[in-house]
Amino acid sequence: MDSIRVALLGHGTVGSSLHQLLVEHREHVRAATQRDVEVTAVLVRDVDRARPGLDPTTTLVTDSLEELLASKPDVVCEAMGGIEPTREYLLALLDRGIPVVTANKQLVARHGTELFARAAAARTQLRFEASVCGAVPIVRMLRESLAATRIECLLGILNGTTNYMLSAMAANGTSYADALATAQDLGYAEPDPTEDVEGIDAAAKLSILAGIAFGTTVDVDDVRTTGISGVTADDVAHAHVLGARIKLVARAERLLAPGGGHTIALDVTPMLVPERHPLAAISGATNAVLVDGAPFGQLVVQGAGAGGPETASALAGDLVSVLGSEPSFLTSDPHVAHLAVAPRDARSERHYVRMRVADRPGVLAAVAGALAAHGVSIERVIQQRAEGADGTGASEASLVLTTHPCAPGDLETALATVESADRTVLPMLDAPEAAS
Amino acid sequence: MDSIRVALLGHGTVGSSLHQLLVEHREHVRAATQRDVEVTAVLVRDVDRARPGLDPTTTLVTDSLEELLASKPDVVCEAMGGIEPTREYLLALLDRGIPVVTANKQLVARHGTELFARAAAARTQLRFEASVCGAVPIVRMLRESLAATRIECLLGILNGTTNYMLSAMAANGTSYADALATAQDLGYAEPDPTEDVEGIDAAAKLSILAGIAFGTTVDVDDVRTTGISGVTADDVAHAHVLGARIKLVARAERLLAPGGGHTIALDVTPMLVPERHPLAAISGATNAVLVDGAPFGQLVVQGAGAGGPETASALAGDLVSVLGSEPSFLTSDPHVAHLAVAPRDARSERHYVRMRVADRPGVLAAVAGALAAHGVSIERVIQQRAEGADGTGASEASLVLTTHPCAPGDLETALATVESADRTVLPMLDAPEAAS
Repeated sequence: MDSIRVALLGHGTVGSSLHQLLVEHREHVRAATQRDVEVTAVLVRDVDRARPGLDPTTTLVTDSLEELLASKPDVVCEAMGGIEPTREYLLALLDRGIPVVTANKQLVARHGTELFARAAAARTQLRFEASVCGAVPIVRMLRESLAATRIECLLGILNGTTNYMLSAMAANGTSYADALATAQDLGYAEPDPTEDVEGIDAAAKLSILAGIAFGTTVDVDDVRTTGISGVTADDVAHAHVLGARIKLVARAERLLAPGGGHTIALDVTPMLVPERHPLAAISGATNAVLVDGAPFGQLVVQGAGAGGPETASALAGDLVSVLGSEPSFLTSDPHVAHLAVAPRDARSERHYVRMRVADRPGVLAAVAGALAAHGVSIERVIQQRAEGADGTGASEASLVLTTHPCAPGDLETALATVESADRTVLPMLDAPEAAS
Repeated sequence: MDSIRVALLGHGTVGSSLHQLLVEHREHVRAATQRDVEVTAVLVRDVDRARPGLDPTTTLVTDSLEELLASKPDVVCEAMGGIEPTREYLLALLDRGIPVVTANKQLVARHGTELFARAAAARTQLRFEASVCGAVPIVRMLRESLAATRIECLLGILNGTTNYMLSAMAANGTSYADALATAQDLGYAEPDPTEDVEGIDAAAKLSILAGIAFGTTVDVDDVRTTGISGVTADDVAHAHVLGARIKLVARAERLLAPGGGHTIALDVTPMLVPERHPLAAISGATNAVLVDGAPFGQLVVQGAGAGGPETASALAGDLVSVLGSEPSFLTSDPHVAHLAVAPRDARSERHYVRMRVADRPGVLAAVAGALAAHGVSIERVIQQRAEGADGTGASEASLVLTTHPCAPGDLETALATVESADRTVLPMLDAPEAAS
């Protein structure tokens, strides 16, 4: 039987890892698919650069999609990233009926609908496991294992950089700035860390996962996104006192709409996660996704969410599936329903509030009064501690409290009437029901 | 488009849950597969028994496979359990090219090779996600996501009953007997708990998973199996002192053979699992599987390992995949290689030892000497405590120690020369490398 001709778009960290995997694990691929796989063409931006493991005398190395198409690939793996010209390339491939597996998160998040439509029209496959959470097989779990079930909620730690930073802050009491500097030193964080620390990366991943989980098209701009740059060492310490960890949680949840039917609430925000919750134990650069629904209960999957070899293993898994299956329902857009996005205050939950207030009698009473006036009741006051004079004779106190379940808008309106500084407001995840 | 005709074998807890799921989640199945699914026939042992949700005027209810075949099912879901006549029925279905999804652990573990061969010969599919760990999609992860990778080790908590019992012993300090009685009261354990507590259930699941993970045929009798009935409240308490939990761990590991090549070590045994290890946090009746290999790193998946609705959701996931894909590589036996089973002493690891010894001077020296004579060195002596007189004037002491890595056979031989009673010997899992 002839070998399967695989073309790669991109030969950077992920692309070269995939190339190496397909060479080194040739036996495994053959065992799984009963086919031999050969990388016959690679598209790169700079054809003149020497690349280890890439021999231009045996493999076509080109910067032209036309040449790549002329090499007659059976399947194409995309690891070049970016929106353009990648989108254009993938459309051209899909239009010709060539199956594509991709690791491109932003492209799937922003242009998934268009890409799926073109794949379906050409009766070919577009797989994208590698675009979310590296080696963690969450796309397959949602698209196939849970396809006949009803998902109520998806919670994820989808960004390894921020989870590494928050883990370091919890373990060592370091500041946000120090945790970021260490993450940058170790290569976990980019020189410009905005995508990671402001939750933009997690929001793109959430929009992909929520779209599959709820069978609806999710606009990444509908994800209410708050980063971790406002989280202080103090907040992390207070969370510990409350028996919780602070995690950047990406959450998609089905909510009952007041008029009947359902909406979907989408947010990425730092949250207090109780120690007993499965996501609390996810430390370091690990990713994890928890899916809750009927009748399967609760499933959690965790693993390496980034890295060239790890992401390459997800591409290879998709490649195996493409080789092993005829064009099928996986050619089609998984987004078939439409769920409206829930308004911000559709969901009430407990909140953690930390702020600096003037240290004078009656301040707590004033805060409690302001909250009560907006229907927010205090569950627990954790701390009201003087923080020393500010040089003008007046002194300040740090006030930390948790609320009973309340709408975030009510809490925000109430707090706007309180004079305070350096304020952190974080939603709190409920503890799971006791298991044993 | 015509509906897909689904026949069920068995209508007990799992079968009726699946039936209900396919009715209630009809929209989800249609969204995923673009097909309507209808349960047109059900095979049961006793056709006269009334069954809620099963209307014999609209659905064929029969005890005859011939009648079921005559109803022309497109796909069959097996949830009747047992070896015969189930095996015979599945062979008859597969021979006719009818795809089968099954929840039958013992059947796949004992007769998987025969069933896969017949499915492949007829170019039809046999899927079996539901046969291992209920809703946890570990079979799909191993067969597809990780098919192109190299798996080094698979560790699982594959039995919910024993994990529930060990969790209760750890949380409440209860005895083995009390934990078993509670598990029986709650319906987690059968009146005859042998299959669960002696590790037989976990061994069958491990043989299925190891077969896929390592692409080899695994005889369930090759799994070295020790149950938890010898684990005492004392052992659980000592484990805590050592920063560990006792878990019934199912483990399949690739080992280098002395003469080159590889062997596979297969065991189910209670182990000390360090608190920081991902499996230590799995409490209650939850199942979890950790897979370690290249280049994906470490993946953990956890969820409900039993229960009618949970198992039904795994059957439904397989059903969706069958409907969505043409006969493919999944028709074929995943067991293509042959790995010899490693001898018991192929692997050295740390061990926990607890025993009662005579409380007289020199006993520890004698134990240490006996161990040293067989090349086993003591890492740490945790406790040597007098336990009170036995009425004859002599008294006994409880001795708890851990060893440096040693072969289990050497340790056993050494301990055979030591006079002691009530002895527990458990291997110890290594802690994961620090993540943050």
